Amino acid sequence: MTKIRVLNQAMVKEVLSLKDTIATVEEVYRGKARETSTLWPMIFYEFEPGLADMDIKSGWMKGLGIYGLKLVSWYGNNPQQQLPALFGTTMLFDDQTGAPLGIVDAEYITGMRTGAAAAIGSKYLARPDSETLLMVGTGHQALFQILSHLIAIPHLKQLFIYDPLKTANAQDFAAACKERLIQLLDQPKIQEDHSQLRAKIDQLTIQPVEELPAVVGKADIIVTATPSKQPLIQAEWVQPGTHFSCVGADMSGKQEIDGKIFQKARLFVDDRKQAIAVGETELPIKQGLIDESAIQGEIGEVLLKRVAGRLSETDITIYDTTGIALQDLAVTKQVLDAAAKNNIGQVVDL
Amino acid sequence: MTKIRVLNQAMVKEVLSLKDTIATVEEVYRGKARETSTLWPMIFYEFEPGLADMDIKSGWMKGLGIYGLKLVSWYGNNPQQQLPALFGTTMLFDDQTGAPLGIVDAEYITGMRTGAAAAIGSKYLARPDSETLLMVGTGHQALFQILSHLIAIPHLKQLFIYDPLKTANAQDFAAACKERLIQLLDQPKIQEDHSQLRAKIDQLTIQPVEELPAVVGKADIIVTATPSKQPLIQAEWVQPGTHFSCVGADMSGKQEIDGKIFQKARLFVDDRKQAIAVGETELPIKQGLIDESAIQGEIGEVLLKRVAGRLSETDITIYDTTGIALQDLAVTKQVLDAAAKNNIGQVVDL
Repeated sequence: MTKIRVLNQAMVKEVLSLKDTIATVEEVYRGKARETSTLWPMIFYEFEPGLADMDIKSGWMKGLGIYGLKLVSWYGNNPQQQLPALFGTTMLFDDQTGAPLGIVDAEYITGMRTGAAAAIGSKYLARPDSETLLMVGTGHQALFQILSHLIAIPHLKQLFIYDPLKTANAQDFAAACKERLIQLLDQPKIQEDHSQLRAKIDQLTIQPVEELPAVVGKADIIVTATPSKQPLIQAEWVQPGTHFSCVGADMSGKQEIDGKIFQKARLFVDDRKQAIAVGETELPIKQGLIDESAIQGEIGEVLLKRVAGRLSETDITIYDTTGIALQDLAVTKQVLDAAAKNNIGQVVDL
Repeated sequence: MTKIRVLNQAMVKEVLSLKDTIATVEEVYRGKARETSTLWPMIFYEFEPGLADMDIKSGWMKGLGIYGLKLVSWYGNNPQQQLPALFGTTMLFDDQTGAPLGIVDAEYITGMRTGAAAAIGSKYLARPDSETLLMVGTGHQALFQILSHLIAIPHLKQLFIYDPLKTANAQDFAAACKERLIQLLDQPKIQEDHSQLRAKIDQLTIQPVEELPAVVGKADIIVTATPSKQPLIQAEWVQPGTHFSCVGADMSGKQEIDGKIFQKARLFVDDRKQAIAVGETELPIKQGLIDESAIQGEIGEVLLKRVAGRLSETDITIYDTTGIALQDLAVTKQVLDAAAKNNIGQVVDL
């Protein structure tokens, strides 16, 4: 019999900070570049096309001593019966013995690791003097994105908010943004000194925008996190020196920025194969605007300094982050360790 | 938040009877033949070849309203540090909402469903007047096999026990057999009337054997459950009318009975592809002794009477059971339902 820890979303929130998530995801990227981790084939199944599906992503992280899997289901009609559309569960195992270690709700971790991923792209690829962030999309990801950028980008002080569906969404989001950022920051019970970050949130200028063309050129960093299937940002609006972290595209056919931007940008991805198959990189290649050699490298190679990131103040850089299972496994390990240390969670015999 | 049930091996033993397991596995076979269930691709990974590996088997059982996965790891060196070599965990999900339902230790269920599977083959393919069972192998599977055959085969009264490694193993096994069968029968706390089965165990003649040639011809049913990689039973020893349920071969290169037996037998399998890839059927085909058309059908087709099983008293029949994930999922569902009904297990919030 093995003792394992079971953590639901409320418990995960008690122990997981975005700062630690960023550090863990950076380590995941380095591990991937060093080839000390392995992704196994994804299983994807549609129960009813467009209405209900599930996927199983799994892999081995030798450096962390774990392997595991994340199973995520999506049932579009669930909300009609007061159930979440998404359920996600991660299971971890000890790679020295095969023993199960824990079972953890995956949803909040997915949000946190996705926010961390894009901010790492911005941290290593945007201009070091970046001050202005344009957040495109006001959905589930927006708050994670903004807080992670506040943590990762030292001089960030101006925030533009744009929502492709309704200006009112951007206005509502902007109005509540500071309060919600503080809430997210204060979520973990394991308190650290947040005074600097609180001051940064306090001093942040937040502005909802109605039209993109006017603000795209003012942004040092642009994060796109929408379900869009057509470009929201056109190439002619983009100034030299801009950095993009593209989050939304995670399945074939999705696209958030004009493929022509890729023709004048230095392009980096989290996983080469996945970016080409389902990322923001997919359509510019399929449309013949660039070829695969346009990918300068994976972000892990930049972190290891094996590949140069930004070369000049005027480079346009793109980080295409599609999300890899290793991020989930590593952050889940971090969460399980913190929960054990702080005696949080439900311990059961398996 | 979702309430899920977590069951360890001791809890599984409290609720799972072999009789119910047989009924459930029969339903699995029927569902497979009706194509109301789907197997997803298996993931297999060797951490250290020959020393440590893991596999993930998964699928959807529409008829039962569930999908799920079973992850099994094998670490050959674990016993040196007082750990089990095998860890197995099954997770089930509701196919109407995607919500997790439970997490259950897989090891005991694997033993039970494997015993049930072979006995179902014997029940539908052996001569109805079968009285004599030759059990080849005295390992972990032997007891499950014998009890499941006592349940499934009405006139069973004589048991031969053979161990390919040591005669002493067969003698020890035979000496303790009745007591252990009663223990296994009495394992579930949910008691049913076992008086008939107890009487059958009581009246059973059990005989350890030193040499196979003399007894193979006397057995109506032969179950092989060994890790053998070469034939233990030669074609010339086999009498007309014999039935084989071959359990041991579950990966490429394993073989328990002479390929020439296949040339004069009616052959049935649990899963056509899997039997050809890793079952007892693999090597006779690779050696050119038979071709794939020798497979009369899957056992589920026999249960549905779509394919004829045994045609005469003198047929030799073979059931090649490799084990399919759907058995695990269905029996795990049965276990979770019984545990809920009897308020057994650890309920946690996920």
